[in-house]
Amino acid sequence: FAGSWGKLRGVCVTAWEMGRSDPRKIVFSAKMGLALMLISLLIFLKEPVKDLGTHYVWAILTVVVVFEFSIGATLSKGFNRGLGTLSAGGLALSMAELSQLAGEWEEAVIVASIFITGFIITYAKLYPTMKPYEYGFRVFLITYCFIMVSGYRTREFIHTAITRFLLIALGAAVCLVVNICIYPIWAGEDLHSLVAQNFMGIANSLEGCVNRYLKCVEYVKVPSKILTYQASDDPLYSGYREAVQSTSQEDALVGFAIWEPPHGPYKMLKYPWRNYVKVSGALRHCAFTVMALHGCILSEIQAPPEKRRVFRSELERVGNAGAIVLRELGNKLEHMEKLGTVDILCEVHEAAEELQKKVDQKSYLLVHAESWEIGSQSKEFQHPQDFLTLNVYNDENKLNKWKSCNAAVLDQGSLPMSRSWDSGNVNMGINFIPPDAVPEGESKTYENASSLALATFTSLLIEFVARLQNLVDAFEELSEKANFKDPVEQPPTA
Amino acid sequence: FAGSWGKLRGVCVTAWEMGRSDPRKIVFSAKMGLALMLISLLIFLKEPVKDLGTHYVWAILTVVVVFEFSIGATLSKGFNRGLGTLSAGGLALSMAELSQLAGEWEEAVIVASIFITGFIITYAKLYPTMKPYEYGFRVFLITYCFIMVSGYRTREFIHTAITRFLLIALGAAVCLVVNICIYPIWAGEDLHSLVAQNFMGIANSLEGCVNRYLKCVEYVKVPSKILTYQASDDPLYSGYREAVQSTSQEDALVGFAIWEPPHGPYKMLKYPWRNYVKVSGALRHCAFTVMALHGCILSEIQAPPEKRRVFRSELERVGNAGAIVLRELGNKLEHMEKLGTVDILCEVHEAAEELQKKVDQKSYLLVHAESWEIGSQSKEFQHPQDFLTLNVYNDENKLNKWKSCNAAVLDQGSLPMSRSWDSGNVNMGINFIPPDAVPEGESKTYENASSLALATFTSLLIEFVARLQNLVDAFEELSEKANFKDPVEQPPTA
Repeated sequence: FAGSWGKLRGVCVTAWEMGRSDPRKIVFSAKMGLALMLISLLIFLKEPVKDLGTHYVWAILTVVVVFEFSIGATLSKGFNRGLGTLSAGGLALSMAELSQLAGEWEEAVIVASIFITGFIITYAKLYPTMKPYEYGFRVFLITYCFIMVSGYRTREFIHTAITRFLLIALGAAVCLVVNICIYPIWAGEDLHSLVAQNFMGIANSLEGCVNRYLKCVEYVKVPSKILTYQASDDPLYSGYREAVQSTSQEDALVGFAIWEPPHGPYKMLKYPWRNYVKVSGALRHCAFTVMALHGCILSEIQAPPEKRRVFRSELERVGNAGAIVLRELGNKLEHMEKLGTVDILCEVHEAAEELQKKVDQKSYLLVHAESWEIGSQSKEFQHPQDFLTLNVYNDENKLNKWKSCNAAVLDQGSLPMSRSWDSGNVNMGINFIPPDAVPEGESKTYENASSLALATFTSLLIEFVARLQNLVDAFEELSEKANFKDPVEQPPTA
Repeated sequence: FAGSWGKLRGVCVTAWEMGRSDPRKIVFSAKMGLALMLISLLIFLKEPVKDLGTHYVWAILTVVVVFEFSIGATLSKGFNRGLGTLSAGGLALSMAELSQLAGEWEEAVIVASIFITGFIITYAKLYPTMKPYEYGFRVFLITYCFIMVSGYRTREFIHTAITRFLLIALGAAVCLVVNICIYPIWAGEDLHSLVAQNFMGIANSLEGCVNRYLKCVEYVKVPSKILTYQASDDPLYSGYREAVQSTSQEDALVGFAIWEPPHGPYKMLKYPWRNYVKVSGALRHCAFTVMALHGCILSEIQAPPEKRRVFRSELERVGNAGAIVLRELGNKLEHMEKLGTVDILCEVHEAAEELQKKVDQKSYLLVHAESWEIGSQSKEFQHPQDFLTLNVYNDENKLNKWKSCNAAVLDQGSLPMSRSWDSGNVNMGINFIPPDAVPEGESKTYENASSLALATFTSLLIEFVARLQNLVDAFEELSEKANFKDPVEQPPTA
């Protein structure tokens, strides 16, 4: 008893939590109860259809089936139900007339027609582009079979068809009135906020990735949920994963939103809902580089911390500027504001160029010249500047070829080239033998690889910035088509 | 008339194509027609339930609603329908008894109970984990309202409930017999082949990316469908996109597959269907690097062709070996074979190490030393080997700092460093001013960036190889749990 009491309490707490996080769910449930209550009352009062016969079940069925969470879904289902019923009713009535001509064989003709209709309708339903009308096809089949069978039994084909249609219309009317007039829930609004939310998720992921990369935080063990692309609590991961995964949700919402009449801030016939999906797609295209940045953190080959530190301020600046752009775009999308005259990408482009220049100047940090096959040797450095600490490699010349002169210098004081792969995450990936156990040649190969990993990170970050333009273009197209309002206040810098 | 004739022909051709590409759809449609025919015949013959009343509509409804494409979906819907009907029937009967005690207020009690039930059931339905039982909740509501309303009108609560249940059972029985006994279509089989197909798609994408990168084929204009992550015909893109996008399909299929009894090659209670999804997730984790490789082809900053050529054979080897591994895993998964004793990753790891070594030896190709801030100058090369053509940069020393000695040599003859970004794709991304128009300093920055792009490509390719281990692990777990057969023939090299 105590156990079931505890469970009951648990259920109540969960229900309460769900209601608090999204009160619309409570409202919707109450609306559903109300619609069912209304239809039962109408049936009891025999209003407005006097001669219900036993067809009242159709009114109840219609309410339960058509009453959906969003207005768009309700309208689309109602339309499907109406169209399916009407066309099937028409076909059934004419088939009934025809089958009566068959005399003795009437029953056989009816059964055969049911088989043929069942085959054709089911086959058509399976065609991919017919998916939104799936429910209509089902209703068609039910109606057709029902009218054929019940008409044959009662000889009241027309009466059956008409009463049934009236009751379905009654159920649909109750649905629509209750659902639209009382606290309507719009699929379009959901789509709008879902896209805005994706912006925030990716901004958080991006910022998190760059910060984490600079702090050299590594996964002790990469969670297997990430390795198999399942949902996980990891904030870096869930930010972009949700944005990437929301495609099917967006497709469903946009399919409903286009059914919705102009309302609230979406005062416009043919509101460009598909452009929201397009913006979200462009955002996803950016998210894939964030995903690849996260891959650098997950990777086994890790760039040495001291080299990351060299590019710290530039990387940070790009990461922050990128996140700011994403958040600003997300905010503007949420509040339906146009971009304004200031170039939103100005700062992030500058930051990226700075990073690019820094990489250019310091690209010697990204390679190890020791194993180069070519070049000359010259170990005398002229005028070593006092702020530079030179760190000249011993040339082992194992390849017995001319090696290039090589000056790897860190301008943050003398930091030894650490064998950073030691601290790397080795639970996944190629089974590289730990460097202590391998000949010098191999260990250097991985030392080089670890430095190039930094080049990969910066390249990906710059690629992310490059993709922002495409996102801004998609946003501008949306803001034009959807008539977003002009930004209220010009920033003082403009 | 000619127009509609043409349209009709078009529809017929489409229908024929659909049937040819998946004959199961024809079979399924015929089965649906057959089931409807059977249930109509049973109603005409008044078998096996003599006193149908007007409840026969429930049998038809059940057939149309429960008859789904796969056995798993049919069973799960049938279970939902049965459970919903039974529990709602029980509740409705007891509520009917209670409401009769209310005397005059009976009608009010019934209507109020409908409201409360409607509210609670709808609210429970909205809880995320209840999604698979959504249909059951709907059936519950329909049944409850129907029994309450029709019982009040006819005073035959129990008779209504029982007849209705019998007819639903009849409909479900016809469904199950027809669907399972005649050419059953299994969701598990679909899941199995979907996962195998994803392997092939990613293998093709990988191979295509590497080949295309080496051939320096660029997009004249990146298709906007790729930029907004919509479905497109591009073979490189669709290969990985389909694999990444198939999550929701897999989730649906696995939800049905667990309902299916052991059958065909899946002779096992509690067959590990979820492990197929896990393998597919691990594959997706690899696919993300292929996605990033494709990103290198889409990118504005492109590595110069002559430098790509230096790494040609190594990149090709890794790409081919990786694709071979994916195809072999896909084949083994399709034919349910274990991996065997030979290390499937041996060749691809070797190839990756070779690539890594080559990058190590030639990493001077990936950077431009011109803009280095440090180092010494030494332009006299000692003993230039005759097979090396030296290509010494003019040092313009615009930063007025000491530059490093720099010897960029291509071992494929003297190829000038081309300004490869000219041919790059500039319709997306940062609005870099074309190099001809910018000061020398900036154009060099991008020259450097373009060389580092090659480093990014190789790093990503090596990261792809690293992630294969995780995939092989997931595959091995599946092959153990699902009792895959041992490989028939040992390769001769073993």
